[in-house]
Amino acid sequence: MNFASDNTTGAARQVIDAMLAANDGSQPGYGNDEITLAVEQRIQDIFETDARVFLVATGTAANSLALSVMTPPHGSVLCHWTSHIYEDECGAPEFFSGGARLIPIEGADGKLDPDDLAEKAAYGQGDVHMLQPSALSITQVTEMGTVYSLDELRTLSEIGRKHGLAVHMDGARFANALVGLGCTPAEMSWKLGVDVLSFGATKNGALGVEAVVIFDTALADTFAFRRKRAGHLFSKMRLLSAQMAAYLDDDLWLKNARHANQMAAQLQAGLKDVAGIEFPYAVDANMLFPRLPDGMSDALHADGFHFYDNRWAPGICRLVTAFNTAKTDVDALISAAQKHAG
Amino acid sequence: MNFASDNTTGAARQVIDAMLAANDGSQPGYGNDEITLAVEQRIQDIFETDARVFLVATGTAANSLALSVMTPPHGSVLCHWTSHIYEDECGAPEFFSGGARLIPIEGADGKLDPDDLAEKAAYGQGDVHMLQPSALSITQVTEMGTVYSLDELRTLSEIGRKHGLAVHMDGARFANALVGLGCTPAEMSWKLGVDVLSFGATKNGALGVEAVVIFDTALADTFAFRRKRAGHLFSKMRLLSAQMAAYLDDDLWLKNARHANQMAAQLQAGLKDVAGIEFPYAVDANMLFPRLPDGMSDALHADGFHFYDNRWAPGICRLVTAFNTAKTDVDALISAAQKHAG
Amino acid sequence: MNFASDNTTGAARQVIDAMLAANDGSQPGYGNDEITLAVEQRIQDIFETDARVFLVATGTAANSLALSVMTPPHGSVLCHWTSHIYEDECGAPEFFSGGARLIPIEGADGKLDPDDLAEKAAYGQGDVHMLQPSALSITQVTEMGTVYSLDELRTLSEIGRKHGLAVHMDGARFANALVGLGCTPAEMSWKLGVDVLSFGATKNGALGVEAVVIFDTALADTFAFRRKRAGHLFSKMRLLSAQMAAYLDDDLWLKNARHANQMAAQLQAGLKDVAGIEFPYAVDANMLFPRLPDGMSDALHADGFHFYDNRWAPGICRLVTAFNTAKTDVDALISAAQKHAG
Amino acid sequence: MNFASDNTTGAARQVIDAMLAANDGSQPGYGNDEITLAVEQRIQDIFETDARVFLVATGTAANSLALSVMTPPHGSVLCHWTSHIYEDECGAPEFFSGGARLIPIEGADGKLDPDDLAEKAAYGQGDVHMLQPSALSITQVTEMGTVYSLDELRTLSEIGRKHGLAVHMDGARFANALVGLGCTPAEMSWKLGVDVLSFGATKNGALGVEAVVIFDTALADTFAFRRKRAGHLFSKMRLLSAQMAAYLDDDLWLKNARHANQMAAQLQAGLKDVAGIEFPYAVDANMLFPRLPDGMSDALHADGFHFYDNRWAPGICRLVTAFNTAKTDVDALISAAQKHAG
Repeated sequence: MNFASDNTTGAARQVIDAMLAANDGSQPGYGNDEITLAVEQRIQDIFETDARVFLVATGTAANSLALSVMTPPHGSVLCHWTSHIYEDECGAPEFFSGGARLIPIEGADGKLDPDDLAEKAAYGQGDVHMLQPSALSITQVTEMGTVYSLDELRTLSEIGRKHGLAVHMDGARFANALVGLGCTPAEMSWKLGVDVLSFGATKNGALGVEAVVIFDTALADTFAFRRKRAGHLFSKMRLLSAQMAAYLDDDLWLKNARHANQMAAQLQAGLKDVAGIEFPYAVDANMLFPRLPDGMSDALHADGFHFYDNRWAPGICRLVTAFNTAKTDVDALISAAQKHAG
Repeated sequence: MNFASDNTTGAARQVIDAMLAANDGSQPGYGNDEITLAVEQRIQDIFETDARVFLVATGTAANSLALSVMTPPHGSVLCHWTSHIYEDECGAPEFFSGGARLIPIEGADGKLDPDDLAEKAAYGQGDVHMLQPSALSITQVTEMGTVYSLDELRTLSEIGRKHGLAVHMDGARFANALVGLGCTPAEMSWKLGVDVLSFGATKNGALGVEAVVIFDTALADTFAFRRKRAGHLFSKMRLLSAQMAAYLDDDLWLKNARHANQMAAQLQAGLKDVAGIEFPYAVDANMLFPRLPDGMSDALHADGFHFYDNRWAPGICRLVTAFNTAKTDVDALISAAQKHAG
Repeated sequence: MNFASDNTTGAARQVIDAMLAANDGSQPGYGNDEITLAVEQRIQDIFETDARVFLVATGTAANSLALSVMTPPHGSVLCHWTSHIYEDECGAPEFFSGGARLIPIEGADGKLDPDDLAEKAAYGQGDVHMLQPSALSITQVTEMGTVYSLDELRTLSEIGRKHGLAVHMDGARFANALVGLGCTPAEMSWKLGVDVLSFGATKNGALGVEAVVIFDTALADTFAFRRKRAGHLFSKMRLLSAQMAAYLDDDLWLKNARHANQMAAQLQAGLKDVAGIEFPYAVDANMLFPRLPDGMSDALHADGFHFYDNRWAPGICRLVTAFNTAKTDVDALISAAQKHAG
Repeated sequence: MNFASDNTTGAARQVIDAMLAANDGSQPGYGNDEITLAVEQRIQDIFETDARVFLVATGTAANSLALSVMTPPHGSVLCHWTSHIYEDECGAPEFFSGGARLIPIEGADGKLDPDDLAEKAAYGQGDVHMLQPSALSITQVTEMGTVYSLDELRTLSEIGRKHGLAVHMDGARFANALVGLGCTPAEMSWKLGVDVLSFGATKNGALGVEAVVIFDTALADTFAFRRKRAGHLFSKMRLLSAQMAAYLDDDLWLKNARHANQMAAQLQAGLKDVAGIEFPYAVDANMLFPRLPDGMSDALHADGFHFYDNRWAPGICRLVTAFNTAKTDVDALISAAQKHAG
């Protein structure tokens, strides 16, 4: 029973079926096929704007390529200190940008603190001895499972814009945030000032595909060359595109996200009444970060539940639900927790 | 009827089936799953040595990551001027190596000329004003469809070794060369002095997977970090590994390559007697570079045959056969050529 | 009357005279001249060890080239958050290292906190998702004017070493620290575990020359190529070397540093009794960071004293003395402060 | 008696005197001093246009920083295969540009062949698999001692411009070419379409200073940051600026270049009648590349004449005259050659 990550599961059946269908016959390579063209159009439709769309296979590639067109090598990228780009990409943003610096920003609940952001965004501007603040990266859903409200996003984006920063959103769990807020994709992105979005699908039912959606199309000029040059242009691109097409068809992405969020909500509802379990963080999407009483984590692991517990404050563990998390697994985890709390 | 590339087709059914099977259930991410571990072992077995094995999804990623551990930023990589790394990767080797230079080497038939190689390998060694020759990259099958003999490979590798160069083989079509020569994988690689091999599968039946096989294991220390940092470590890695496992199972890779080579041989046998068609290059694997008489290329295109004809000497076109090229398509192309020559 | 920086003055007369003398006649270029060879030997003698020595013209070049041989691109460099490499080099360490990350470490008085260092040095080691802690950079004299004791240096260096970090010392003001501690150059560097030293001369009487002294000579193999490749190998190298030779001859470097430190001590002695002036930081070398009462900074500026006051905590200004600071200027500053405090 | 390079001599006395004068007193650092501002203005006046001017200390820094604002990392720079950037900078252009490729162009006499240039400038444009031709670098004086006519320069620049390339001139010996052609600085640069010029002084009387003159000022936006980030912003910048000021004052630069060229002309006049000596290359400036009869090179070396003879076609040596080459040395070399030919 897996609550370790929304990455450890496979892909949704619809996604695999679409790959199978796309596999037949011959198609031009490197994204010049009909499926790719259609999916780019589809994403423009969903976002209600003429964005440029580029597919890649991993979230790290999406984020790093996105940032590489948003900062010069002598620039800096402001991001939360828990963010994936700062903590989990082994310096990929530095590599792709030619050595730009990531500046960690403070903030509770995995959210950027506006005051710290404003201070760092102004710091060193125009001083030739200092890296130039150039981009702001916002993670939605945050790495602590919280979701920014539209107002919170607007505040951050306006701070960035005021200081001349391009605004990036790491939307590895974009769908989970979207269904949580109940707004449109446009409202949660370019209408708030997002210039480039990493639009994730892998964690929510795809095998391995993400879209970089460039709303500020002036930033898109060099993207295709950068993608190729990084080895991220696939010859059999239609097999990425088919995944994304299936992901978007019939609102599969929204359905998957709703399911994952519901499982998370039910898990929280069951756990919050267990003696000794606390929830220091709001559960806004599909990740829970409860504090477990002493010994419970080990006991649950012994019961066969997989999850991480060694990376946060003492006692804090991370439970992640996915598009295909079974209700029975949720119930089993709650029961086990109740048993160990007894 | 497609003869444009072995990239424009889909994947073999066995490969897709293996992905489907691997898709069920949960597995640790990022290559810590059982399928990945097994396929790394399988490749060691096939090559009869304790090489380090890393899977990536594209040939450009394989080549560039491989070269990045073989040259310092102030080094140079010697390669044929027609090679994929020089002509078709938009500077990826430069990007991954931190700015090393690719030095184009002359040579007929797509093969490195030993004399030019020896001269360039010695050039500037130890001179602080000059880039230091550090790696030799050999493409097998060459980009002109020819296959180096083992003796030719040994000659080149020994020149490289004599001057302290690490030896890379771009084996995007490794299987096609191997069945052409009828030797073992070990004989065509590390036994000849190859230090790092890009072992291709995508062009020969996989969806998108290549293995970097590092025979000189001292070069492997930083590879995992470099792969992650380039966005080429897949969270759902087992879906790459499953492709490679199926590719190797039951000698699928060798069967696929034999078929492609046979189709190429039959195509050549049929075309070589057509009036006006010449074969300036040996057809050693699955690519043909015939010179067509005036107008035939356009006529064949009009008949619905896809292939490239605008990148080589006047009149030269490229015909590529694949693991699933139909005998009927080969016959159709021969008939059409005969008709237009008539 | 200038207390802004030890960079705003010119060079010592002896240094200029040596350049004039070296300017005559012809000498081999690019460091193959006798003056360069002699100065490299001289530095080995001073440090009592067979270090490799490379001259460059700026401190940023020295630090960045030094670090570039101490960390891979996927590594991180741990340094104080006030350090020159973090704050004042516009990302040069990132550029020269190919994208390594600088991790800011906490600590009072400009000194690295051993506990924070130990935690960050261990963080992420061996985890492929994280940058690998690879180097520790210690600034001696710190950017807050304090000087580490030998025990403090040993503690930091041992933490670094325990976690496999190479140890760098930014010694832009090495001489000022050395005469403060009254130890030998060897005792303040390699005997404590320093692997690579940026040995500054520019701030202490040279026109523009710094030595990178590589005690761990295994790190020196690629240095000459990196220096050339960064445009820091001078054709008329003897004119850098002559500066360094004069700087070391007759203990000019130590005399200059002693003078600067004495001027700082006298300045502190005079200012500490002025009403409203406090010294939150120890004055261990040639920099003072007093807190001035409201309005005094502006008043002193109006009197013609140059110094910075806008970069630190409120009220804090920086006063720097140099090898040629006049006693009369020190007295004048004290008198002016007394006047404004009255 | 030195004919090895115009780099092996020292600086002109006027240049040294200006440094001495600038050394007194205090001045703001990092180029914010009056001497620097004045010299930037002076260069604008000389070139009759509002160019942006940046001083650096080495020719490699000038060229590499210049090119770094003219090509993206996925671009290529077209240059003669004998050019300094291709042959003598250890990959600095690749380093500074983040991995752009240098494409060697053919051409007799060290001059770019317009046909080869036109072919390479068009090659791969817009093809995502290929590096994008982005800049053209022209060396004036060429590395073979020849000087392009204004018409030749215009032809090359127009080819570049037609294909969207930014045009760079490596003017390490700009003065020597200028006095050879007898035109104005503007006529030999921006009026012909040069966008960025490396304006050399070091080889012609300075100690170590070069100006990057950016005529296309849109390219200048990031230059200051790039210079700092590469360690090429000098704290005591006025000591570079003073060199350049003296170099330009009273037409010292032109006088120096005229002298060097005259010495070269006299040397050629004397040598061309010596039995067995041939001049395959025109002597347009201050470098001669005669072919010497067997044994003469060794004999002249034994006589104490320094020059290079091992890098070109068999028998070819290089003789370089400088701003301070003595007429007696020229006569001595001619006499020695006559003696050995006898």
